[in-house]
Amino acid sequence: MTSSVRVLGIDPGLTRCGIGIVDVRADRSATLVHVGVARSDPAAPIEVRLAAIAAGIRAAVDAHAPEVVAVERVFAQHNRQTVMGTAQASGIALLVAGERGLPAATHTPSEVKAAITGYGSADKRQVQAMVARVLRLDALPTPADAADALAIALCHAWRRPLGPVGGGAALTPAQRAWAQAERRARS
Amino acid sequence: MTSSVRVLGIDPGLTRCGIGIVDVRADRSATLVHVGVARSDPAAPIEVRLAAIAAGIRAAVDAHAPEVVAVERVFAQHNRQTVMGTAQASGIALLVAGERGLPAATHTPSEVKAAITGYGSADKRQVQAMVARVLRLDALPTPADAADALAIALCHAWRRPLGPVGGGAALTPAQRAWAQAERRARS
Repeated sequence: MTSSVRVLGIDPGLTRCGIGIVDVRADRSATLVHVGVARSDPAAPIEVRLAAIAAGIRAAVDAHAPEVVAVERVFAQHNRQTVMGTAQASGIALLVAGERGLPAATHTPSEVKAAITGYGSADKRQVQAMVARVLRLDALPTPADAADALAIALCHAWRRPLGPVGGGAALTPAQRAWAQAERRARS
Repeated sequence: MTSSVRVLGIDPGLTRCGIGIVDVRADRSATLVHVGVARSDPAAPIEVRLAAIAAGIRAAVDAHAPEVVAVERVFAQHNRQTVMGTAQASGIALLVAGERGLPAATHTPSEVKAAITGYGSADKRQVQAMVARVLRLDALPTPADAADALAIALCHAWRRPLGPVGGGAALTPAQRAWAQAERRARS
Protein backbone atom coordinates (compact mmCIF):
# COMPACT_ATOMS: atom_id res chain seq x y z
CA MET A 1 0.00 0.00 0.00
CA THR A 2 1.19 3.50 -0.76
CA SER A 3 1.23 6.13 1.96
CA SER A 4 -2.35 7.00 1.13
CA VAL A 5 -5.32 5.03 -0.09
CA ARG A 6 -8.10 6.27 -2.37
CA VAL A 7 -11.46 4.93 -1.25
CA LEU A 8 -14.78 5.08 -3.09
CA GLY A 9 -17.70 5.06 -0.65
CA ILE A 10 -21.20 4.22 -1.85
CA ASP A 11 -24.45 4.96 -0.02
CA PRO A 12 -26.64 2.69 -2.12
CA GLY A 13 -30.00 3.92 -3.32
CA LEU A 14 -32.16 3.74 -6.39
CA THR A 15 -33.39 7.34 -6.52
CA ARG A 16 -30.17 8.86 -5.16
CA CYS A 17 -27.01 6.79 -4.80
CA GLY A 18 -24.34 8.66 -2.83
CA ILE A 19 -20.81 8.57 -4.28
CA GLY A 20 -17.85 9.87 -2.26
CA ILE A 21 -14.13 9.49 -2.92
CA VAL A 22 -11.42 10.39 -0.42
CA ASP A 23 -7.66 10.01 -0.13
CA VAL A 24 -6.71 8.86 3.37
CA ARG A 25 -3.14 8.87 4.62
CA ALA A 26 -1.55 6.59 7.21
CA ASP A 27 -1.91 9.31 9.86
CA ARG A 28 -5.70 9.20 9.18
CA SER A 29 -5.80 12.66 7.63
CA ALA A 30 -8.05 12.75 4.59
CA THR A 31 -8.69 14.83 1.48
CA LEU A 32 -11.85 15.11 -0.57
CA VAL A 33 -11.43 13.84 -4.15
CA HIS A 34 -15.02 13.73 -5.39
CA VAL A 35 -18.53 13.80 -4.02
CA GLY A 36 -21.83 13.49 -5.80
CA VAL A 37 -24.88 11.35 -6.41
CA ALA A 38 -26.02 9.07 -9.20
CA ARG A 39 -29.73 9.61 -9.72
CA SER A 40 -32.46 7.71 -11.49
CA ASP A 41 -35.96 8.73 -12.44
CA PRO A 42 -38.47 7.07 -10.09
CA ALA A 43 -40.92 6.92 -13.00
CA ALA A 44 -38.50 4.94 -15.19
CA PRO A 45 -38.55 1.12 -15.40
CA ILE A 46 -36.33 -0.62 -12.86
CA GLU A 47 -33.87 -1.88 -15.51
CA VAL A 48 -33.35 1.67 -16.78
CA ARG A 49 -32.92 2.97 -13.23
CA LEU A 50 -30.27 0.38 -12.36
CA ALA A 51 -28.40 1.12 -15.60
CA ALA A 52 -28.37 4.83 -14.70
CA ILE A 53 -26.95 4.07 -11.25
CA ALA A 54 -24.29 1.77 -12.75
CA ALA A 55 -23.31 4.44 -15.28
CA GLY A 56 -22.93 7.04 -12.54
CA ILE A 57 -20.71 4.81 -10.41
CA ARG A 58 -18.61 3.72 -13.40
CA ALA A 59 -18.08 7.35 -14.41
CA ALA A 60 -16.74 8.16 -10.93
CA VAL A 61 -14.46 5.10 -10.97
CA ASP A 62 -13.12 5.95 -14.42
CA ALA A 63 -12.55 9.61 -13.54
CA HIS A 64 -10.90 9.12 -10.16
CA ALA A 65 -9.43 5.58 -10.09
CA PRO A 66 -10.19 4.54 -6.50
CA GLU A 67 -8.22 1.58 -5.12
CA VAL A 68 -11.00 0.09 -3.03
CA VAL A 69 -14.79 0.33 -2.82
CA ALA A 70 -16.81 0.46 0.40
CA VAL A 71 -20.59 0.04 0.32
CA GLU A 72 -23.06 0.54 3.16
CA ARG A 73 -24.61 -2.80 4.08
CA VAL A 74 -28.34 -3.18 3.55
CA PHE A 75 -30.51 -5.15 5.96
CA ALA A 76 -33.56 -7.11 4.91
CA GLN A 77 -35.49 -6.19 8.03
CA HIS A 78 -35.36 -2.41 7.52
CA ASN A 79 -37.72 -0.34 5.38
CA ARG A 80 -39.23 -3.22 3.49
CA GLN A 81 -40.81 -1.02 0.89
CA THR A 82 -37.50 0.33 -0.39
CA VAL A 83 -35.09 -2.37 0.76
CA MET A 84 -35.19 -4.32 -2.49
CA GLY A 85 -34.23 -1.28 -4.57
CA THR A 86 -31.48 -0.43 -2.09
CA ALA A 87 -30.22 -4.02 -2.13
CA GLN A 88 -30.18 -4.02 -5.92
CA ALA A 89 -28.30 -0.70 -6.00
CA SER A 90 -25.74 -2.10 -3.54
CA GLY A 91 -25.34 -5.13 -5.82
CA ILE A 92 -24.68 -2.79 -8.74
CA ALA A 93 -22.00 -0.93 -6.76
CA LEU A 94 -20.30 -4.21 -5.81
CA LEU A 95 -20.56 -5.44 -9.41
CA VAL A 96 -18.82 -2.32 -10.72
CA ALA A 97 -16.02 -2.95 -8.21
CA GLY A 98 -15.72 -6.59 -9.26
CA GLU A 99 -15.70 -5.76 -12.96
CA ARG A 100 -12.94 -3.21 -12.44
CA GLY A 101 -10.89 -5.66 -10.35
CA LEU A 102 -11.25 -3.51 -7.22
CA PRO A 103 -11.61 -5.09 -3.78
CA ALA A 104 -14.89 -4.20 -2.08
CA ALA A 105 -16.19 -4.26 1.46
CA THR A 106 -19.47 -3.54 3.18
CA HIS A 107 -19.96 -1.74 6.49
CA THR A 108 -23.06 -1.48 8.62
CA PRO A 109 -24.52 1.93 9.45
CA SER A 110 -23.43 1.58 13.06
CA GLU A 111 -19.88 0.66 12.03
CA VAL A 112 -19.81 3.85 9.97
CA LYS A 113 -21.15 5.97 12.82
CA ALA A 114 -18.70 4.44 15.30
CA ALA A 115 -15.74 4.93 12.98
CA ILE A 116 -16.57 8.55 12.24
CA THR A 117 -17.84 9.85 15.58
CA GLY A 118 -16.63 7.25 18.05
CA TYR A 119 -20.07 5.95 18.94
CA GLY A 120 -22.45 3.77 16.96
CA SER A 121 -25.63 5.58 17.86
CA ALA A 122 -24.56 9.00 16.62
CA ASP A 123 -27.20 10.80 14.60
CA LYS A 124 -26.86 11.59 10.93
CA ARG A 125 -26.07 15.27 11.54
CA GLN A 126 -23.20 14.48 13.90
CA VAL A 127 -21.72 12.14 11.30
CA GLN A 128 -22.04 14.75 8.58
CA ALA A 129 -20.51 17.48 10.71
CA MET A 130 -17.53 15.26 11.52
CA VAL A 131 -17.07 14.39 7.84
CA ALA A 132 -17.04 18.08 6.94
CA ARG A 133 -14.52 18.80 9.68
CA VAL A 134 -12.18 15.93 8.78
CA LEU A 135 -12.23 16.90 5.10
CA ARG A 136 -11.97 20.64 5.92
CA LEU A 137 -15.13 21.46 3.99
CA ASP A 138 -16.79 24.85 4.44
CA ALA A 139 -20.26 23.33 4.28
CA LEU A 140 -21.89 19.95 4.77
CA PRO A 141 -21.98 18.05 1.50
CA THR A 142 -25.51 17.77 0.12
CA PRO A 143 -27.64 15.85 -0.46
CA ALA A 144 -27.27 13.72 2.66
CA ASP A 145 -26.60 10.63 0.52
CA ALA A 146 -23.40 12.28 -0.74
CA ALA A 147 -22.21 13.05 2.80
CA ASP A 148 -23.06 9.50 3.85
CA ALA A 149 -20.96 8.12 1.01
CA LEU A 150 -17.97 10.13 2.26
CA ALA A 151 -18.54 8.77 5.76
CA ILE A 152 -18.54 5.20 4.43
CA ALA A 153 -15.29 5.83 2.56
CA LEU A 154 -13.62 7.33 5.66
CA CYS A 155 -14.94 4.49 7.82
CA HIS A 156 -13.41 1.93 5.52
CA ALA A 157 -10.01 3.60 5.40
CA TRP A 158 -9.90 4.14 9.16
CA ARG A 159 -11.05 0.67 10.11
CA ARG A 160 -8.65 -1.15 7.84
CA PRO A 161 -5.19 -0.24 9.06
CA LEU A 162 -6.00 0.87 12.58
CA GLY A 163 -9.10 -0.94 13.75
CA PRO A 164 -12.22 0.71 15.15
CA VAL A 165 -11.90 4.08 16.82
CA GLY A 166 -12.36 4.33 20.57
CA GLY A 167 -11.43 0.75 21.40
CA GLY A 168 -9.76 1.83 24.66
CA ALA A 169 -6.89 -0.35 25.91
CA ALA A 170 -6.22 -1.85 22.46
CA LEU A 171 -5.42 1.55 20.94
CA THR A 172 -1.92 2.46 19.82
CA PRO A 173 -0.58 5.84 20.98
CA ALA A 174 -1.38 7.28 17.55
CA GLN A 175 -4.94 5.96 17.72
CA ARG A 176 -5.34 7.36 21.22
CA ALA A 177 -4.15 10.76 20.03
CA TRP A 178 -6.64 10.61 17.18
CA ALA A 179 -9.48 9.59 19.42
CA GLN A 180 -8.67 12.52 21.70
CA ALA A 181 -8.60 14.90 18.74
CA GLU A 182 -11.98 13.55 17.67
CA ARG A 183 -13.42 14.08 21.12
CA ARG A 184 -12.11 17.66 21.13
CA ALA A 185 -13.58 18.24 17.67
CA ARG A 186 -16.97 16.98 18.87
CA SER A 187 -17.03 18.98 22.08
CA MET B 1 -44.46 -7.85 -32.14
CA THR B 2 -43.45 -10.60 -34.53
CA SER B 3 -45.35 -13.87 -34.53
CA SER B 4 -43.04 -15.16 -31.82
CA VAL B 5 -41.18 -13.55 -28.94
CA ARG B 6 -37.85 -14.64 -27.51
CA VAL B 7 -37.87 -14.35 -23.71
CA LEU B 8 -34.94 -14.64 -21.32
CA GLY B 9 -36.08 -15.88 -17.91
CA ILE B 10 -33.84 -15.45 -14.86
CA ASP B 11 -34.15 -17.31 -11.56
CA PRO B 12 -31.86 -15.01 -9.58
CA GLY B 13 -29.28 -16.49 -7.25
CA LEU B 14 -25.72 -15.90 -6.21
CA THR B 15 -24.45 -19.49 -6.16
CA ARG B 16 -26.60 -20.65 -9.09
CA CYS B 17 -28.51 -18.18 -11.26
CA GLY B 18 -30.92 -19.96 -13.60
CA ILE B 19 -30.95 -18.78 -17.22
CA GLY B 20 -33.63 -19.96 -19.64
CA ILE B 21 -34.49 -18.69 -23.11
CA VAL B 22 -37.59 -19.70 -25.05
CA ASP B 23 -39.33 -18.69 -28.25
CA VAL B 24 -43.07 -18.39 -27.69
CA ARG B 25 -45.54 -18.05 -30.55
CA ALA B 26 -48.91 -16.31 -30.55
CA ASP B 27 -50.67 -19.69 -30.18
CA ARG B 28 -48.67 -20.11 -26.91
CA SER B 29 -46.56 -22.96 -28.29
CA ALA B 30 -42.94 -22.65 -27.22
CA THR B 31 -39.49 -23.87 -28.19
CA LEU B 32 -36.39 -24.18 -26.04
CA VAL B 33 -33.54 -21.90 -27.17
CA HIS B 34 -31.11 -22.18 -24.27
CA VAL B 35 -31.02 -23.32 -20.70
CA GLY B 36 -28.22 -23.18 -18.15
CA VAL B 37 -26.96 -21.59 -14.99
CA ALA B 38 -24.44 -18.89 -14.16
CA ARG B 39 -22.48 -19.98 -11.10
CA SER B 40 -20.21 -18.24 -8.66
CA ASP B 41 -17.85 -19.62 -6.06
CA PRO B 42 -19.38 -19.22 -2.58
CA ALA B 43 -15.85 -18.74 -1.22
CA ALA B 44 -15.15 -15.77 -3.52
CA PRO B 45 -15.68 -12.14 -2.45
CA ILE B 46 -19.16 -10.79 -3.19
CA GLU B 47 -17.92 -8.37 -5.87
CA VAL B 48 -16.26 -11.25 -7.75
CA ARG B 49 -19.38 -13.39 -7.42
CA LEU B 50 -21.66 -10.68 -8.81
CA ALA B 51 -19.28 -10.09 -11.72
CA ALA B 52 -19.38 -13.83 -12.53
CA ILE B 53 -23.19 -13.80 -12.53
CA ALA B 54 -23.26 -10.71 -14.75
CA ALA B 55 -20.80 -12.30 -17.19
CA GLY B 56 -22.94 -15.44 -17.43
CA ILE B 57 -26.13 -13.50 -18.13
CA ARG B 58 -24.42 -11.23 -20.67
CA ALA B 59 -22.99 -14.25 -22.49
CA ALA B 60 -26.49 -15.72 -22.85
CA VAL B 61 -27.89 -12.38 -24.06
CA ASP B 62 -25.09 -11.95 -26.59
CA ALA B 63 -25.39 -15.52 -27.88
CA HIS B 64 -29.18 -15.69 -28.18
CA ALA B 65 -30.48 -12.10 -28.48
CA PRO B 66 -33.65 -12.27 -26.39
CA GLU B 67 -36.21 -9.50 -26.91
CA VAL B 68 -37.36 -9.22 -23.32
CA VAL B 69 -36.09 -10.26 -19.87
CA ALA B 70 -38.25 -11.69 -17.07
CA VAL B 71 -36.85 -12.02 -13.54
CA GLU B 72 -38.41 -13.77 -10.56
CA ARG B 73 -39.31 -11.22 -7.92
CA VAL B 74 -37.50 -11.44 -4.58
CA PHE B 75 -39.25 -10.70 -1.31
CA ALA B 76 -37.53 -9.19 1.69
CA GLN B 77 -39.44 -11.31 4.16
CA HIS B 78 -38.31 -14.71 2.82
CA ASN B 79 -35.08 -16.53 3.69
CA ARG B 80 -33.37 -13.58 5.28
CA GLN B 81 -29.96 -15.22 5.24
CA THR B 82 -29.80 -15.45 1.46
CA VAL B 83 -32.28 -12.77 0.43
CA MET B 84 -29.67 -10.03 0.06
CA GLY B 85 -27.57 -12.10 -2.34
CA THR B 86 -30.68 -13.05 -4.29
CA ALA B 87 -31.82 -9.43 -4.42
CA GLN B 88 -28.39 -8.36 -5.63
CA ALA B 89 -28.38 -11.06 -8.31
CA SER B 90 -31.83 -9.95 -9.47
CA GLY B 91 -30.50 -6.39 -9.68
CA ILE B 92 -27.64 -7.64 -11.84
CA ALA B 93 -30.08 -9.40 -14.19
CA LEU B 94 -32.22 -6.27 -14.50
CA LEU B 95 -29.10 -4.15 -15.04
CA VAL B 96 -27.94 -6.36 -17.92
CA ALA B 97 -31.38 -5.92 -19.51
CA GLY B 98 -31.26 -2.15 -19.06
CA GLU B 99 -27.74 -1.88 -20.45
CA ARG B 100 -28.74 -3.89 -23.53
CA GLY B 101 -31.86 -1.77 -24.03
CA LEU B 102 -34.16 -4.73 -23.37
CA PRO B 103 -37.45 -4.29 -21.51
CA ALA B 104 -37.61 -6.24 -18.26
CA ALA B 105 -40.35 -7.44 -15.96
CA THR B 106 -40.56 -9.24 -12.65
CA HIS B 107 -43.03 -11.96 -11.70
CA THR B 108 -43.78 -13.41 -8.30
CA PRO B 109 -43.33 -17.14 -7.70
CA SER B 110 -47.08 -17.60 -7.45
CA GLU B 111 -47.65 -15.74 -10.73
CA VAL B 112 -45.20 -18.14 -12.34
CA LYS B 113 -46.87 -21.20 -10.84
CA ALA B 114 -50.33 -19.97 -11.86
CA ALA B 115 -49.23 -19.18 -15.40
CA ILE B 116 -47.56 -22.55 -15.90
CA THR B 117 -49.85 -24.96 -14.09
CA GLY B 118 -53.07 -22.99 -13.67
CA TYR B 119 -52.82 -22.71 -9.90
CA GLY B 120 -50.57 -20.55 -7.75
CA SER B 121 -49.87 -23.14 -5.08
CA ALA B 122 -48.47 -25.81 -7.42
CA ASP B 123 -45.30 -27.44 -6.17
CA LYS B 124 -41.93 -27.09 -7.87
CA ARG B 125 -42.08 -30.55 -9.46
CA GLN B 126 -45.44 -29.89 -11.08
CA VAL B 127 -44.10 -26.67 -12.56
CA GLN B 128 -41.00 -28.41 -13.87
CA ALA B 129 -42.99 -31.28 -15.36
CA MET B 130 -45.25 -28.82 -17.19
CA VAL B 131 -42.24 -26.88 -18.48
CA ALA B 132 -40.73 -30.10 -19.85
CA ARG B 133 -44.04 -31.04 -21.49
CA VAL B 134 -44.63 -27.63 -23.08
CA LEU B 135 -41.07 -27.52 -24.43
CA ARG B 136 -41.20 -31.22 -25.48
CA LEU B 137 -38.10 -32.08 -23.45
CA ASP B 138 -37.25 -35.72 -22.76
CA ALA B 139 -36.10 -34.93 -19.23
CA LEU B 140 -36.59 -32.21 -16.65
CA PRO B 141 -33.94 -29.52 -17.04
CA THR B 142 -31.43 -29.59 -14.20
CA PRO B 143 -30.48 -28.04 -11.90
CA ALA B 144 -33.85 -26.82 -10.66
CA ASP B 145 -32.75 -23.20 -11.06
CA ALA B 146 -32.49 -23.76 -14.82
CA ALA B 147 -35.98 -25.24 -15.02
CA ASP B 148 -37.32 -22.37 -12.90
CA ALA B 149 -35.78 -19.87 -15.31
CA LEU B 150 -37.64 -21.50 -18.20
CA ALA B 151 -40.88 -21.33 -16.20
CA ILE B 152 -40.36 -17.61 -15.60
CA ALA B 153 -39.74 -17.02 -19.31
CA LEU B 154 -42.88 -18.96 -20.28
CA CYS B 155 -44.90 -17.16 -17.61
CA HIS B 156 -43.88 -13.80 -18.99
CA ALA B 157 -44.71 -14.69 -22.58
CA TRP B 158 -48.05 -16.23 -21.67
CA ARG B 159 -49.15 -13.45 -19.34
CA ARG B 160 -48.31 -10.61 -21.69
CA PRO B 161 -50.54 -11.10 -24.70
CA LEU B 162 -53.24 -13.26 -23.15
CA GLY B 163 -53.49 -12.44 -19.48
CA PRO B 164 -53.36 -15.00 -16.67
CA VAL B 165 -54.42 -18.54 -17.39
CA GLY B 166 -57.57 -19.94 -15.86
CA GLY B 167 -59.33 -16.63 -15.32
CA GLY B 168 -62.71 -18.15 -16.18
CA ALA B 169 -65.29 -15.80 -17.68
CA ALA B 170 -62.69 -13.24 -18.81
CA LEU B 171 -60.94 -15.75 -21.10
CA THR B 172 -61.09 -15.45 -24.87
CA PRO B 173 -62.01 -18.60 -26.79
CA ALA B 174 -58.31 -19.16 -27.58
CA GLN B 175 -57.40 -18.82 -23.92
CA ARG B 176 -60.16 -21.20 -22.94
CA ALA B 177 -58.90 -23.76 -25.45
CA TRP B 178 -55.40 -23.39 -24.05
CA ALA B 179 -56.57 -23.77 -20.48
CA GLN B 180 -58.38 -26.94 -21.47
CA ALA B 181 -55.26 -28.27 -23.18
CA GLU B 182 -53.31 -27.52 -20.03
CA ARG B 183 -55.81 -29.35 -17.89
CA ARG B 184 -55.59 -32.36 -20.23
CA ALA B 185 -51.79 -32.24 -20.10
CA ARG B 186 -51.88 -32.22 -16.30
CA SER B 187 -54.37 -35.04 -15.94
